[in-house]
This record gives sequence, C-alpha cells and structure tokens, in this order.
Amino acid sequence: MYSANMFSVYGRMTARPGRRDELIALLHEGFRAGGDDSGLLTYSINTAPEDPDTIWMTQLWTDKEAHDATTRSEAVATVTQRLPPLLAKQPEGSYGHAVYVHGLTAE
Amino acid sequence: MYSANMFSVYGRMTARPGRRDELIALLHEGFRAGGDDSGLLTYSINTAPEDPDTIWMTQLWTDKEAHDATTRSEAVATVTQRLPPLLAKQPEGSYGHAVYVHGLTAE
Repeated sequence: MYSANMFSVYGRMTARPGRRDELIALLHEGFRAGGDDSGLLTYSINTAPEDPDTIWMTQLWTDKEAHDATTRSEAVATVTQRLPPLLAKQPEGSYGHAVYVHGLTAE
Repeated sequence: MYSANMFSVYGRMTARPGRRDELIALLHEGFRAGGDDSGLLTYSINTAPEDPDTIWMTQLWTDKEAHDATTRSEAVATVTQRLPPLLAKQPEGSYGHAVYVHGLTAE
C-alpha cells in the first residue's frame, strides 16, 4: 500500500522522571481517539535504550489533510491537552512525505 | 503483529546538495539487500518539507539480533559503504524498543 500523498510524523518526548509509562499510555490513547477511519495507517511508540524517560514515536497518515483534521478533532485534542503536565521539555520532531513504505497492512 | 522484542530505528541524513534522490535510492537498495527473511518488518523513507537535502527513515525489526546480523551482512554492508560520499554530515538517529505497533502486515 503506497500513495504519493502519504504523510509521516516522527516525535521525540522526554517525560518527567517516573512518568514515562503514563506518557506512553496517553499517546496510545490519543492515537486511537480519532477512530478507525482517521487516516492514521500505522504507528509505533518506542522506548529509548539510552534514557529511561524518553520515548519516540512514528506515524504514517494517508495524507497531511487527514493528519491535520484528526489532530485538531475534539476527540484527539481532548487527549493531547493532557500531555504537557507529563513532559519534562518541549517535544521535538519531524514531518515528512513518504517516498518508500514497506510492510503495511493491505500492501 | 507484535512481539516484545521488536527493535526500532530512526535515522536522519542530509545529502550533499542535489544528491538526495541518489541517497534515497541507495538506502532503499540497502533495505532490500538483506532479502525477504532479514527480520526487517517495515520501513519508510521520507523527505523533509523544510529541507530539500534531508531525509529521515524508520525501520522496525523482529529483534535487535536480526538488525545487527543483517546490517553487518556482506550484502547490506556492500551497499552501506557507498553512503558516505553522498552525505553532507554524519547521520543522526535513535534506536528503540517498540512498545506499541499498529498497522503492520499480518497484524
């Protein structure tokens, strides 16, 4: 499965000490809050071996429009606004346009 | 499809001016060089909207051992050693252990 419009997100966040697992659970809740037709095709949430408070995540969306609409939806925003108290610093990340994608459902 | 051992890679590279597409093609060649049973479950290669010379990629492996063995294999190393002349600077990246994965083939 590949479309020239696919939109990618990479994000890296550091939790306040001891709150990483809450951060992971909240991110996971947010990723699912848009529902099955949100346009979010795949995601991963990963711990970082070198830092017990850091996580990084990836997302692949059908297109940027789906990302923007879902991210701004009330269902997702309600979850996202609970993130800042868990974070030790501002998130970092990148957006991208997917050139090659391999291994998705329905490929 | 999910296993507690899944190993994630994020990498960010900046090509010498005008050589981004060669870099993308070479990375793609390298990702496939390990063969179908390499343990590389999914990958993406993405351009960065803010910089025409930058790409970033993600990989998800069955486990770290598969990543290490495949990356060091002669088939892959032969491709990888052609990367440095295309790069404007050292790659950056992160390794991770996947906590949640959604959207893979055979999930």
